[in-house]
Amino acid sequence: MFVRMRVLYHLWLSPASRTIRIVLAEKGLEFAMKVEPIWQRRPEFLALNPAGEVPVLIEPDGTVLADAAAIAEFLDEVYRDKLLLGINPVDRAEVRRLVAWFDHEMNREVTDNLIGEKMMKRFLGFGEPNSNAIRAGKANLVHHLDYIGYLVDRRRWLAGEHFSLADIAAAAHLSALDYLGDVSWDDHEPAKEWYARVRSRPSFRAILADHIPGAPPPKHYVDLDF
Amino acid sequence: MFVRMRVLYHLWLSPASRTIRIVLAEKGLEFAMKVEPIWQRRPEFLALNPAGEVPVLIEPDGTVLADAAAIAEFLDEVYRDKLLLGINPVDRAEVRRLVAWFDHEMNREVTDNLIGEKMMKRFLGFGEPNSNAIRAGKANLVHHLDYIGYLVDRRRWLAGEHFSLADIAAAAHLSALDYLGDVSWDDHEPAKEWYARVRSRPSFRAILADHIPGAPPPKHYVDLDF
Repeated sequence: MFVRMRVLYHLWLSPASRTIRIVLAEKGLEFAMKVEPIWQRRPEFLALNPAGEVPVLIEPDGTVLADAAAIAEFLDEVYRDKLLLGINPVDRAEVRRLVAWFDHEMNREVTDNLIGEKMMKRFLGFGEPNSNAIRAGKANLVHHLDYIGYLVDRRRWLAGEHFSLADIAAAAHLSALDYLGDVSWDDHEPAKEWYARVRSRPSFRAILADHIPGAPPPKHYVDLDF
Repeated sequence: MFVRMRVLYHLWLSPASRTIRIVLAEKGLEFAMKVEPIWQRRPEFLALNPAGEVPVLIEPDGTVLADAAAIAEFLDEVYRDKLLLGINPVDRAEVRRLVAWFDHEMNREVTDNLIGEKMMKRFLGFGEPNSNAIRAGKANLVHHLDYIGYLVDRRRWLAGEHFSLADIAAAAHLSALDYLGDVSWDDHEPAKEWYARVRSRPSFRAILADHIPGAPPPKHYVDLDF
């Protein structure tokens, strides 16, 4: 029997794509990956996701899923191994609040300024990165690392006592920033300790093996002891 | 026995706040409203929501909920009357994709440009609205009304056969834009017909009765026949 493979349309340094890669790995689900050059706005891809963004996941039965939060919620509803949203509604609300925090606030204040500028401009040839944006991104990153430290001073994981989608979303952003060498871990011990715990999980292995042609990661990206 | 009232911190023209007002009304839940001047960044409010944004909902038992999507998901999980996310995972993924579309894409391309500029600047005295932003917001709104028309040509409601949070989120943005007279309904018949169905629901009554001092709505805002 021919079984279709689950396919994830992604970009290497897209935190939202990394989030879904980690979720799939946590749940032990196999998938193939296709790099989607979203800046080309291919009609075939826009038909899958009118927003024109990665990630998009095609399930083995052909179901098309778009938007990282919607994909993660779907996977957590359908594949009930290792629940990543939590069980009770109050805990789930806290996970969702934090996922939105990282995917929207941190994304706008930090990730867009650093990854957006560096990757989209330098590597794709869309001009020089805007140095004001990079400065702002680095300054804002300090506050986000402090907030992560604040949370893990009070809780075992970001949203509470259990590892959750909030940890995955935050680590997805930080791993992409780390790939570009933008995270000053040594100034942020509590966040560093939490990140070391997240990235020692088997679900993180594929992310750490990423190697973008022409843009190798710094040595500490892969070094699990930092 | 003293029962605490549910409290919603909101802003009148915040689509995210309107979404939660409509969700609460759909579920028949009573609540008090407090206007939160988020630009003041009150420490007491930042303690409730570090993102500094409305809506924030305080449940009668004191549970603090922040982020519109997280609040709506919580309410749909706890109060099971009139489910707004749907039942099966594929339908729920489509509702969530569209909610993210309206609350992020449409918000950035349209709502921020129109409501952000007009309300925050003109009414709050932060300077004159940026006419380029307003022009861009109006041009982008056409595409969003067309997309709504595209969806309701194929489905009874935006996400499928059932009224859902996707309809509420879209109507929340459009109702706020409509309050400022920014929606050219007559050029968008399918979207207009859909919006008329949404706003004829009892859950929409309170929104239509809104009257911001010094900024009355245009006549058609309240007129259910348009």
